[in-house]
This record gives sequence, C-alpha cells and structure tokens, in this order.
Amino acid sequence: MNREELVAQIKLKRSFLCVGLDSDINKIPSHLLEFEDPIFEFNKQIIDSTKDLCVAYKPNIAFYESLGSKGWESLKKTLEYIPNENFTIADAKRGDIGNTSAHYGRAFFSNLDFDAITVAPYMGKDSVTPFLEFSGKWVILLALTSNIGANDFQKIKCLNNKSLFNEVLELSKPWGDEKNMMYVVGATRADDLIDIRNVVPDHFLLVPGVGAQGGDLQKVAKYGMNSDCGILVNSSRGIIYAGNDEDFAKNSRLEAQKLHKEMELILLDAGII
Amino acid sequence: MNREELVAQIKLKRSFLCVGLDSDINKIPSHLLEFEDPIFEFNKQIIDSTKDLCVAYKPNIAFYESLGSKGWESLKKTLEYIPNENFTIADAKRGDIGNTSAHYGRAFFSNLDFDAITVAPYMGKDSVTPFLEFSGKWVILLALTSNIGANDFQKIKCLNNKSLFNEVLELSKPWGDEKNMMYVVGATRADDLIDIRNVVPDHFLLVPGVGAQGGDLQKVAKYGMNSDCGILVNSSRGIIYAGNDEDFAKNSRLEAQKLHKEMELILLDAGII
Repeated sequence: MNREELVAQIKLKRSFLCVGLDSDINKIPSHLLEFEDPIFEFNKQIIDSTKDLCVAYKPNIAFYESLGSKGWESLKKTLEYIPNENFTIADAKRGDIGNTSAHYGRAFFSNLDFDAITVAPYMGKDSVTPFLEFSGKWVILLALTSNIGANDFQKIKCLNNKSLFNEVLELSKPWGDEKNMMYVVGATRADDLIDIRNVVPDHFLLVPGVGAQGGDLQKVAKYGMNSDCGILVNSSRGIIYAGNDEDFAKNSRLEAQKLHKEMELILLDAGII
Repeated sequence: MNREELVAQIKLKRSFLCVGLDSDINKIPSHLLEFEDPIFEFNKQIIDSTKDLCVAYKPNIAFYESLGSKGWESLKKTLEYIPNENFTIADAKRGDIGNTSAHYGRAFFSNLDFDAITVAPYMGKDSVTPFLEFSGKWVILLALTSNIGANDFQKIKCLNNKSLFNEVLELSKPWGDEKNMMYVVGATRADDLIDIRNVVPDHFLLVPGVGAQGGDLQKVAKYGMNSDCGILVNSSRGIIYAGNDEDFAKNSRLEAQKLHKEMELILLDAGII
C-alpha cells in the first residue's frame, strides 16, 4: 500500500488506528484452544470485529516465532486473511549486515507480503537500506520507543548536544523518503514530538504505547499529526484482550470503537476530514 | 553450556572457531536441491566435516526465516543435529519491550534450546534482561559490529567523549556477568579492542568478520584474548561456501583446518594450551 492509499484509507475510515496482534497462546480465551489453529482463529475473530475501525494491523512477530513453524503458519494465514485495504506491519525489529537484512526482507516482503517492517537502527545505514530496495514496501525505523529502557541509549546526549534518537532521525532521513519510511515514536514520548516533527515533518510516525503502556492519545495527536494525519496509533493488549470469553471479539470491537470515536473527533478538529 | 564447559572445549579442541551457518538456498551446491530438506542436508554435511575443528555453530536466523515454516523446520533439525559439545548461537539480533523479548527468549531458548542469542541494544535494559532470565543461557549483545554502517551510530561520540558502543558496554555490564553475557565485536574493529578490553576484560567476545569481510585473526587474537581465551571467532561464507560441488564439505573442512591450525598456534603462544 502506498502513501496516497494509506491517507485515503484514514480519511475513508475516519481512523488512524493500528491494532497490534500480540496474540499469545497463553492469553487467548480458552475455548479457542479446541480449534486446529487457535492463534489464527483468535486473529480471525479480532480482524472480523475491528477491520472497519482500523487502518492497519501489526502482528508482533515474537508471539508467532515462539511457537516455531506452527506459529509461522498462523502468521501466514493471518496475513492472508487481513483485507487488502488494511496496511500490514511486521513488528519484527530486525536489522543486520546487508546480506542478512536482504534475507529478512525476503521473509517479510516476498514470502509473507507485509507492507512494512519495523527495523532497529543500531547497525547503521547498510543494515536498513536493503529493506528499502523492495519496491512498494516500507521501513519503520525505531527512533524513540515507549519503554523505560529507551532512556538508556536513545536519549543519550551526543557531542553536538543532540539525543541519539535525533541523530537517528537526521542521519536516516535521506536513506529513503516519506513514501517508504516511517519512524517509531512511543506514545509515552509525546513531549518529544515537537522536536521530532522539526526533523521529520512529513513522515508518518508509528505510535505504540496507547492503552496498556499509558500513552495519551490527545497529546500524541496534538504534537504528532501533520496535514496528512501522519500518525498511526497502535493499541495491542487494550483491544485484543478486552474480553476473555466467547464474546471476546465483541469486547475488542467496543474498545476499538472508543479509540475510533476519539480519533474521528481529532481528525474533524484538525480539518483532515 | 556454561562458561567452564566452553573454556574446556576450547582447550580440548585447541580452537576458538565458530562456524556461521548462513545457509542460503540459492548458494548451496545444486545437487542438494534433490533432498527433501536441502538446507538441513547442507548443514548436516558441514557439521559432520567441521565439528571436531570448531567449538561453536552460529545459524543466521534470517536465512531460515526467509523460507517460512519450512525454514524453521530446517533450523530445528539442524540444532538437534549439532553435537552437545558444540556451543550454539542463534544469530537473531532481536530486542523489543520486555514482554516481547520474553517471547523471543522462548522461541530460541525453550522451543529451540540454543545456548545463546545475539541481541541489539537500542531499546535498552528492559529489552535485554528478559533474555537473561533463562537459566543457563547467554545474551550476546551487539557492541561494535563489522559492517561500515557501524560508524553511523555505534561510533558516535557522546557528551562524555565516549563512543556509543563504549556506553553500551559500560551500561550493560552490570545487567548480567561474564557467565551469561558476551559482546559482538567485529574482526574489522581490531584497533578498538584495547579500549573494549579495558571495559570488559573478562567477558567473551563473539568476533565475526574474519574471511569474506576481511578481518585479521592475528590482530583480533593479540588485542582481544584474555586468560580464558575469551574470544569466539566466526567464519561463515569462507568455510561453508568453500566448495560448490559434491565435495563441498571436504573443501569446508580444509578451510576450517586452516583457521584451526592458526588458532592452535595462537593458543599455544598465549600459554592457554
């Protein structure tokens, strides 16, 4: 999905919600364990009940990988089940020397046909650009993450008095453009969004951390949005584990509706719809 | 495998060689494509012909992941085939918020029973420590990698005039100890090894980049070794693609023997054996 199509979907659905499919075999409702592929059945029902309310899905690859080859089958089926009008993000946080990153690209862009993959920047340019060579695909580079550990290195001050995450933004910006790169900025980092938007005013930002991690949607929207909306706000556990019985998908829909309503008002206020 | 056992293996085998299983379906000898699982067959023959010469194997996870669920089966079979006296490293470069890193830990330590996993430090302490909670397992944290892109961020100078990779070493050192943590330092970075050994004198270092990437084994040994040897030097392509016909495994053995011979002399010179 290209940028124009993504922006069109945001306007059509009046939403910039991304639903994180952190589907944990130990947390899904127990009645699903009777199905041949419980994780896929869980995802299927979550997708059915939220697909009109969100513009993107973000499977968290660790939850599939921890189940071995069966997990990869669940992931493949899930990706095939997600409607074409939903943007898909492999939350994989990969990144390695060029030859290896190219193989990760094949895994997520050729074999699985995701629209985007999250990538860790520590190994530098030649670990990121191999992903950008896949036509029509996106890199979502980690800038400032939502966890406490982000303070350890991402907020270290460099000699020029800038934070490392700022260096990541500035240095990586010319590696791609706003049509094939986004950045991860945690919702718990809303205070840094003004600085971040000074460096990357046009790029989309993927914003996890609303919900279970305590991020504030209004602040994120206030400081993070641009004229194309420019943010995808993710909620995982707050939506997918809203219920734990046979009605779990209905409860997920109710939680997604709350965020959708709030996002619709934000988009209206900003004059984007 | 614990540290004492690893050091004992190094002394017994007179080697600190790690063979990287970057087994690419497009590069293995074509006659193997007739086997039901060509990647496993390739690895099996490489392992048979090198297991007495090396102390560790390091499958590069991207090469298996790019083949989807079949790749995971090849990886699982490979891991089961590697003899217990060889240390096993999942070269995965994972790292995410705590809950997610715990799932990656399950993938590689519980489901697959690797001894160690490589981890990227960008997301900080709470992305690394979940891996350290697996008893008897190792984290190998990226410090200074062998690729050109390492200069982009790892060598950035911080306000205290130290490089970022130095900050990573200093800050992460207390997260574990020399019995459950190692660091990745590229063989192409031998000039930085003196500084690195000042910060982490006792830890093992995993040193990729000898061979195809041009690292110098003698320099790495001179500046990187400690009294327990303290280095595992990896060669991937230089060994596994030494031949490309039915005799490929014999050629791999010849290349591994060359490195083994050099390492034996280094260990003798250093008085370790």
